[in-house]
Amino acid sequence: MNAEIIAVGSELLLGQITNTNARFLSGQLALIGINVYYHTVVGDNATRFKHALEIAESRSDFIIITGGLGPTKDDLTKETVASHLGLPLESDENAMEQIELFFKRTKREMTENNRKQALILQGAQVLPNNHGMAPGMVVTKEDKLYMLLPGPPSELEPMFLTYGTAALVGRLSSQEQIVSRVLRFFGIGEALLENEIEDLIDNQSNPTIAPLAAEGEVTLRLTAKHSVISSAIELIDEMEEKILSRVGQYFYGYDEISLMDELAKLLKENKLTISCAESLTGGMFQEQFTSIPGAGGSLKGGVICYTNEVKANVLHVRKETIEHDGVVSRKCAAELAENVASLMNADIGISFTGVAGPDELEGKPVGTVYIGISVNGKPAAVEKLNLGGTRAANRIRTVKYGCYFLLKKLKEIQEA
Amino acid sequence: MNAEIIAVGSELLLGQITNTNARFLSGQLALIGINVYYHTVVGDNATRFKHALEIAESRSDFIIITGGLGPTKDDLTKETVASHLGLPLESDENAMEQIELFFKRTKREMTENNRKQALILQGAQVLPNNHGMAPGMVVTKEDKLYMLLPGPPSELEPMFLTYGTAALVGRLSSQEQIVSRVLRFFGIGEALLENEIEDLIDNQSNPTIAPLAAEGEVTLRLTAKHSVISSAIELIDEMEEKILSRVGQYFYGYDEISLMDELAKLLKENKLTISCAESLTGGMFQEQFTSIPGAGGSLKGGVICYTNEVKANVLHVRKETIEHDGVVSRKCAAELAENVASLMNADIGISFTGVAGPDELEGKPVGTVYIGISVNGKPAAVEKLNLGGTRAANRIRTVKYGCYFLLKKLKEIQEA
Repeated sequence: MNAEIIAVGSELLLGQITNTNARFLSGQLALIGINVYYHTVVGDNATRFKHALEIAESRSDFIIITGGLGPTKDDLTKETVASHLGLPLESDENAMEQIELFFKRTKREMTENNRKQALILQGAQVLPNNHGMAPGMVVTKEDKLYMLLPGPPSELEPMFLTYGTAALVGRLSSQEQIVSRVLRFFGIGEALLENEIEDLIDNQSNPTIAPLAAEGEVTLRLTAKHSVISSAIELIDEMEEKILSRVGQYFYGYDEISLMDELAKLLKENKLTISCAESLTGGMFQEQFTSIPGAGGSLKGGVICYTNEVKANVLHVRKETIEHDGVVSRKCAAELAENVASLMNADIGISFTGVAGPDELEGKPVGTVYIGISVNGKPAAVEKLNLGGTRAANRIRTVKYGCYFLLKKLKEIQEA
Repeated sequence: MNAEIIAVGSELLLGQITNTNARFLSGQLALIGINVYYHTVVGDNATRFKHALEIAESRSDFIIITGGLGPTKDDLTKETVASHLGLPLESDENAMEQIELFFKRTKREMTENNRKQALILQGAQVLPNNHGMAPGMVVTKEDKLYMLLPGPPSELEPMFLTYGTAALVGRLSSQEQIVSRVLRFFGIGEALLENEIEDLIDNQSNPTIAPLAAEGEVTLRLTAKHSVISSAIELIDEMEEKILSRVGQYFYGYDEISLMDELAKLLKENKLTISCAESLTGGMFQEQFTSIPGAGGSLKGGVICYTNEVKANVLHVRKETIEHDGVVSRKCAAELAENVASLMNADIGISFTGVAGPDELEGKPVGTVYIGISVNGKPAAVEKLNLGGTRAANRIRTVKYGCYFLLKKLKEIQEA
């Protein structure tokens, strides 16, 4: 089954937003063995959209259409597909009920054009929308399979994962199983990692090995094909073992897991509480930590100590340290980590102080960062970084390094 | 001149990377008045790429092709375009020199396939690559204009800005100027906003009006065409005035500005300092605030008060409030805002407490949020929200509402 993804929306053609839906869907379709041969983007224009549909039908079996299911006038996806396929639109009771409930719950006023969102193509299987109002749908016409999905990624992604994949798997004719696994590394550059496994990459066939670098991390995606799923998994297991025997010290997790996920898991398992003093990161560490559902239980709280005044008065960094060593210093990071743990009554204190940029600070260059970690009231260990990126990249990498150092520290303690 | 962007690369169809080049180029082309009607993505497959070229030629005057200019086996863009257009490839001396220099400078060994990168289509105008080895090029054949650009955004973007735009502007036949402006709204739904300006949308021609909703915000993009740029701006000014006379109370800014940018600007102008107590948002408000270069000067600092213990011990929320009203309450929000301002010695205290989800808290449903704002030591004003989204969406919207309420409050004070 060959697929094509058509995104509908003039905002894509104007460069206002990026077509992240095509990337998400392509990755998901690869996992269930559906080849995507084309992506198309077309504006909110019925004629050009119909033209794109005709081309897609001439070369693809399965056509996914994203966007244009909303309540406004330029949302013309359903109407155009309906007229193109010669299928009438009908109001779906369940979808209508969900829309009415949404307005009741949020105490907002419902307008007539919101009712349009409950219309579906006659005979279509409805994909419920648990994060918005417009339902998705799947319909077959003349051997072609059509799937309509809402444009906002916050609606499309959960809808596809929960209902879309299931709707497809039942219709798949191919018996080849594709298994994919991502290995995640931190603390090693892409070129160096590739060097270490160069022969494996050169001789790859099944599984394939695809490296990708992003924001200080490197990932390797292993993909194996086999008629028996357990055999595909075995092929991946073998290759993973070979790779990790060479660069295992930099490996930290699988697939979509982040360093922060790993940290939250380890803290929860060990019933440890954490607190955080953030200067240059401005709250990013704690924001990411609390974005993981359930992780919040390990976080007592923390202080954003952006000014020297707050470092001194709220977190009691010594006057001598600030005047003699400065706030971008080993000593300041240590005192911040120790004192935030004591203020918040937490097992662990972690601190971030440094120069995010664009300007230098205390004569220290952009990218100078100190991370302090104090566990169980012990004097803090401090790590120094020399990062070379933009303000945004330096902050992101600082938070990742914080997770990485703390994970290492906790594993050392466990093993001791 | 109607344009189409064809991206070549199997990694795009596998979902390994996102087609950010199409977004970048579309935005840039819009600025110089070139309409983009289609984006296409095709894999590293000569047959399917040729097929995509034929379709593009049937509907577009100007075809931009990105990616596949590298030295490896799967880089087939130049060869395919050459055979499709019947133009031979020739080695470009300047490009060859640049490639040799690159290898000399980095002391790396040059392989035969690197020479491939210096090949250009006969008769093409070369676009030099100052950030990599593969040159870009522009060529005309039978009234169609073709532009080939390298795939990596770090090479494509500077190449297009420095050489690509200039190459195009010289070839543009139309002298029509296009001006675009985005109006940003908060606190009103997309459907409701459109209802208010339905007649303007129905009768739009010049300027056009394109609404877009994302994360609780709605934007309207106004685009006007005129042979004289000042007249295009006038057309937009007139339409903006009409729109704002109806929904001006929800308008907060232009183009790429965010609510947080507006807030940071207002605080700086008025030399006001701010502090923040964050429970459900976990640091997101302060992380976003400090991500704006230079904004940090207005932020004294803040407390992430994720636990009741920290609310009580560090921010001194009264025991009575926690036991009687709970932490998800008007009173708790007020005390948090007042006390964080006093702890941090700041002019303004803002607090966020509520239920992000997925589970309810204190018997209060997911999406119940209180935002407290205290200015100059005065008792806090508290706003209540009933949000209906996921954990992530509720946190993002809470931060946006925080900016929105604080902006409103500060403007009220200014006007009083």
